[in-house]
Amino acid sequence: MAKPNLSPKIHLNKDNFESLLQERVNNEISKYIINTNEIDESMRYALTNPGKRVRPLLAYLIGDVLNLNLNMLDGTASAIEIIHTYSLVHDDLPCMDDDDLRRGQPTLHVKYSESTAVLAGDAMASLAIDIILQDSCLSSDLKVELLQFLMKTIGPEGMILGQIQDISFETTDVSEEQIIKMNELKTGALVEFSMLAPVIIAGEDTKQWGKIAKRVGITFQLIDDLLDIQETEEKLGKAAKKDKKKNKKNYPICFGVDKTRDKIKEYQNEVEVLISEMNLSEHPISIYINKLFARQK
Amino acid sequence: MAKPNLSPKIHLNKDNFESLLQERVNNEISKYIINTNEIDESMRYALTNPGKRVRPLLAYLIGDVLNLNLNMLDGTASAIEIIHTYSLVHDDLPCMDDDDLRRGQPTLHVKYSESTAVLAGDAMASLAIDIILQDSCLSSDLKVELLQFLMKTIGPEGMILGQIQDISFETTDVSEEQIIKMNELKTGALVEFSMLAPVIIAGEDTKQWGKIAKRVGITFQLIDDLLDIQETEEKLGKAAKKDKKKNKKNYPICFGVDKTRDKIKEYQNEVEVLISEMNLSEHPISIYINKLFARQK
Repeated sequence: MAKPNLSPKIHLNKDNFESLLQERVNNEISKYIINTNEIDESMRYALTNPGKRVRPLLAYLIGDVLNLNLNMLDGTASAIEIIHTYSLVHDDLPCMDDDDLRRGQPTLHVKYSESTAVLAGDAMASLAIDIILQDSCLSSDLKVELLQFLMKTIGPEGMILGQIQDISFETTDVSEEQIIKMNELKTGALVEFSMLAPVIIAGEDTKQWGKIAKRVGITFQLIDDLLDIQETEEKLGKAAKKDKKKNKKNYPICFGVDKTRDKIKEYQNEVEVLISEMNLSEHPISIYINKLFARQK
Repeated sequence: MAKPNLSPKIHLNKDNFESLLQERVNNEISKYIINTNEIDESMRYALTNPGKRVRPLLAYLIGDVLNLNLNMLDGTASAIEIIHTYSLVHDDLPCMDDDDLRRGQPTLHVKYSESTAVLAGDAMASLAIDIILQDSCLSSDLKVELLQFLMKTIGPEGMILGQIQDISFETTDVSEEQIIKMNELKTGALVEFSMLAPVIIAGEDTKQWGKIAKRVGITFQLIDDLLDIQETEEKLGKAAKKDKKKNKKNYPICFGVDKTRDKIKEYQNEVEVLISEMNLSEHPISIYINKLFARQK
């Protein structure tokens, strides 16, 4: 295994972890996009759009639980955020969700062009994979294991299948189980990857974290769908209620706001129990997951 | 290194190699797409469109020169064809080249929808990478080396940069050098990967093959551009002369048919010399490259 140049261990606490880790991943990502051509400029535009960096933060916080030096996660955390951004850029295209705004700013195809958005998405997927391949902290065996998991997560049996289901559900009747499965594929899978990648890198067992990750992933999309119904366009910085207008099906649209809140509460309680079984209720990971469950935007 | 289950060595000769290798790669690809959902169906549609399988054939033929058991190349050859197809599917989109026909059949977005074409392209990129990651004939070190090379080939400094240049050149003046560089990135790089991947897998030096591959890659695009100008829509099975209508710039459009023919001849002569230096003038690889140089469709 390659010898990484490890920096001193960083001490995360409940007051500093969020800004500290957001800055860390933003700084990491900026290292990989250095050219001045239209592809790099458009990728930079999409990636400096002020997102919450939820997925990298989950990865870093679990790495902290497992006592990993965070250097070991820098490449993977950046790759995860870049993959997430690629999926948003393609998802926002006119032929997909047709969104003009993302986090309050023009989407990539509005700012540049549709062709640039297609190509920038393609480029980000390739860049993210390359970041893991080039990561000097990881052995070849670990790179292959992580990337196999990532391809399963984002490929034709993962995220992309969820996205095509999301579109095809517009014109079919769907069951509760199908909606939850679609959520899990479309959004949950990459959240799960973010939470399990550090466990794999640390060489620990993924069973307990797997249960937590699955619930956090599904709930994340349920909350997103709920906010989309409840909030105004102005407040969210994206076209709210758009999904409903386009025959889009999601959990609150199909089964109501109350049942969605119950479902979120159910998953939240299960996650709290699982976290407390690991004696992590006071750790920033627990604080952060609770914050995600309580988010209003 | 994992122990591959090697089949007996196949004897390629000038009469059988083309059909035998096309059948081989088609058969391999079909193993990876087995589901009945819209993503797999659309990928299957794009991948069973009767292409010449130029890139896998180049890989297999060079593998044969290097005395590799062709099993060692099955995954990589399939991955290359799938990557090539992904690039065509995105390139054909209305916001890109806006092509309705590909190899005489409706393009993927015409047959299915634009959203399916975006997602099927994304899925194919992911699938191709996963095929190399899962290849039981290759060690982890070799997988990482091949995939690093592949990401460089298709990523934001390779194929995608060539594609964005191709679009941006429509509205700018370009030099001969810029056109050749764009060809090299857009088309040449993946041809080069196809020819050098077997050399890397065999653990041989890539220097001489690199010189050949570079010339074959650029020439392949020059011939494509020349045919596009010369042939009628009916003959080519795609929208001929379309490039010129759309202000597309390529070598024959900018510098004329005669100069393009001279350029092709120049590269062809250089390749012939390089191949003869390796005493391979009688090998199927030489026959196949000559056939590519002489192709009329």
